[in-house]
Amino acid sequence: MKIVIAPDSFKGSLSAVDVAAVMKQAISKALPNAEVVSVPVADGGEGTMDSLVTATGGKKVKVVVKGPTRKDVTAEYGVLGDGKTCVIEMASASGLVLIPAHERNPMVTTTLGTGELIKAALDAGYRSFVLAIGGSATNDGGTGMLQALGMKLLDKQGESVGYGGEAVGQITAIDDALFDKRIRESTFLIASDVQNPFVGPTGASAVFGPQKGATQEMVEELDRGLTTWADLIEKQTGVRLHDQAGAGAAGGIGGAFQAFFPSSMRRGIDLVIEHTHLEKKLVGADLVLTGEGQIDDQTASGKTPMGVAEAAKKQGIPVVAIAGSVGEGIEELYQYGIISVFSIVKGPMNLEQAMEGCSEYLALTTEQVVRTFFAFRD
Amino acid sequence: MKIVIAPDSFKGSLSAVDVAAVMKQAISKALPNAEVVSVPVADGGEGTMDSLVTATGGKKVKVVVKGPTRKDVTAEYGVLGDGKTCVIEMASASGLVLIPAHERNPMVTTTLGTGELIKAALDAGYRSFVLAIGGSATNDGGTGMLQALGMKLLDKQGESVGYGGEAVGQITAIDDALFDKRIRESTFLIASDVQNPFVGPTGASAVFGPQKGATQEMVEELDRGLTTWADLIEKQTGVRLHDQAGAGAAGGIGGAFQAFFPSSMRRGIDLVIEHTHLEKKLVGADLVLTGEGQIDDQTASGKTPMGVAEAAKKQGIPVVAIAGSVGEGIEELYQYGIISVFSIVKGPMNLEQAMEGCSEYLALTTEQVVRTFFAFRD
Repeated sequence: MKIVIAPDSFKGSLSAVDVAAVMKQAISKALPNAEVVSVPVADGGEGTMDSLVTATGGKKVKVVVKGPTRKDVTAEYGVLGDGKTCVIEMASASGLVLIPAHERNPMVTTTLGTGELIKAALDAGYRSFVLAIGGSATNDGGTGMLQALGMKLLDKQGESVGYGGEAVGQITAIDDALFDKRIRESTFLIASDVQNPFVGPTGASAVFGPQKGATQEMVEELDRGLTTWADLIEKQTGVRLHDQAGAGAAGGIGGAFQAFFPSSMRRGIDLVIEHTHLEKKLVGADLVLTGEGQIDDQTASGKTPMGVAEAAKKQGIPVVAIAGSVGEGIEELYQYGIISVFSIVKGPMNLEQAMEGCSEYLALTTEQVVRTFFAFRD
Repeated sequence: MKIVIAPDSFKGSLSAVDVAAVMKQAISKALPNAEVVSVPVADGGEGTMDSLVTATGGKKVKVVVKGPTRKDVTAEYGVLGDGKTCVIEMASASGLVLIPAHERNPMVTTTLGTGELIKAALDAGYRSFVLAIGGSATNDGGTGMLQALGMKLLDKQGESVGYGGEAVGQITAIDDALFDKRIRESTFLIASDVQNPFVGPTGASAVFGPQKGATQEMVEELDRGLTTWADLIEKQTGVRLHDQAGAGAAGGIGGAFQAFFPSSMRRGIDLVIEHTHLEKKLVGADLVLTGEGQIDDQTASGKTPMGVAEAAKKQGIPVVAIAGSVGEGIEELYQYGIISVFSIVKGPMNLEQAMEGCSEYLALTTEQVVRTFFAFRD
């Protein structure tokens, strides 16, 4: 028999790659002769680069860049198994995880490092990019990234503005004379599930600013800054970002891609499924195991287990999902091809205990699921 | 398809009958056309009478008797569907559950009520008895029961001794002239997994006294009392209880049955499986679901899920066990025919939350198990 393992991470406990490894070992214990194919997946959020690199047998390249507060950080980009496609996880260079909670301040944080990471990949010869833009610490409308790639953003005095959300409103002119020409020769697939516009009450600043450390006053200033920036972009490029769906993704970097890059946005999970060649790997499988830290009524909105299930359903392969925690509404997932959902938690325990025992409990649950699923055949 | 539901109780949350009802409803949701046979089971402990009555379509009869501290309690005996076999659960008349923790004192507690319950059933015409003797509050060597049935237990002065463990050591003579003659016309099957002898370091008082409220001093006095009592029984009947396996069950009532009743002891789960006709009901089943509050490495020592699995294994039917809490060592259960074990707990939560949500989580897990098990066939 053939089993495909296609889990996301259990956030805070195990990466998708780790989850797949634990599941694989548990299956080998239950069914020593089973063919097991591991395809750690991600939905465009944290771990996307790792999943794609692992699933395709690619590699990772370290680059020192300026982090969100312009301190040096060692970021990574990935190169897929095809040797051509470069995966960049914005969070690696400009992510919330890189700064302690009390230093989070989107007036200051910049996408500079993401631009440097792209530049390093361009220098290495890559022209085909997948960008996962979840988990950013920034609200700078992509200005830092553009500056890293040679764009001059000038204030009233004709001087280059600084970095971070507070500088955005000072921009009065865009000089793209030195903007990296290789961008035009490249393609950028942006993995994002965010449909928010650039500005306004459902825009980047209002909706995502607070979780990045913005006070209400900052949100208003950031939104005014992005509006000025969008006005200028419209004037210069003809692209109107203000109400554009997806332009508000990742502090407005979505809009910067839309205006200045040969880019298209795709649902994260779809991009990942495509680049991991999941559908091909599913052929002939008897069972698919997926999983995520939390599975609930939000899972149906583009999370990994649902994307995996949709892909498996096309081939009539049942999918069992394993979660750290199972919330309400999992019955809704049945229609997408998830036949059942199990929690790894094996008795009353607190979150800390569940996280500590995560590998052990995941292995145990995987073994039980596989034993149950294949029992009927025996 | 046919599914047999044969769970024990989830102690503190749901009786075996309730567990079976919740499971049945969940199966109907997942597989509306499945034939579902409910056989709530018990292993001779709490709930044994209920299980047997429910499984055989019998009835229950209420009787007011003296409880363990000689306060009136309304106890029950059960009559199985055959209309002949009477099931008595000792805990119903003389159980720990009938007295608050601070009143537990085996110097005082008596099996009088258990004797009254047997007498009431004899009066009603029953001669075939199954006795579940788990959960007793007593350490009186069965003296209270014997007194209720007409046995005179006399002290040095030739007066009847009182009740409870403290009176046992005062007995110097047994007068069985008025001991209920109907006992001899009856059969008593004692459901007990306890192999402890009557007295000594592994005897009733030393091993079970403390959990019934005995201090170390009491344990010593109780053991001396039972030794005197055993000496006397040996002199009068020729039956030597001192080192007799099982005589120490339920504060020594096991020994009283062995010495004075036409009785035999059987492993609780075996008696229950026999009287519920579980093996007959299993015929043609595709799946058996069992369960218990806790499943762990103790389960293999005669607990319900193991007994059910042994019965199912003879017919090659896979068994899935569902538990409130899954402990260590469940791999050992595979050899008995349990193919997998799942906890109902669906995420980190404390015991109180797990117990509160027990029905809901049990239903959800049952549904997931059934969907997983039968998915392969679809």
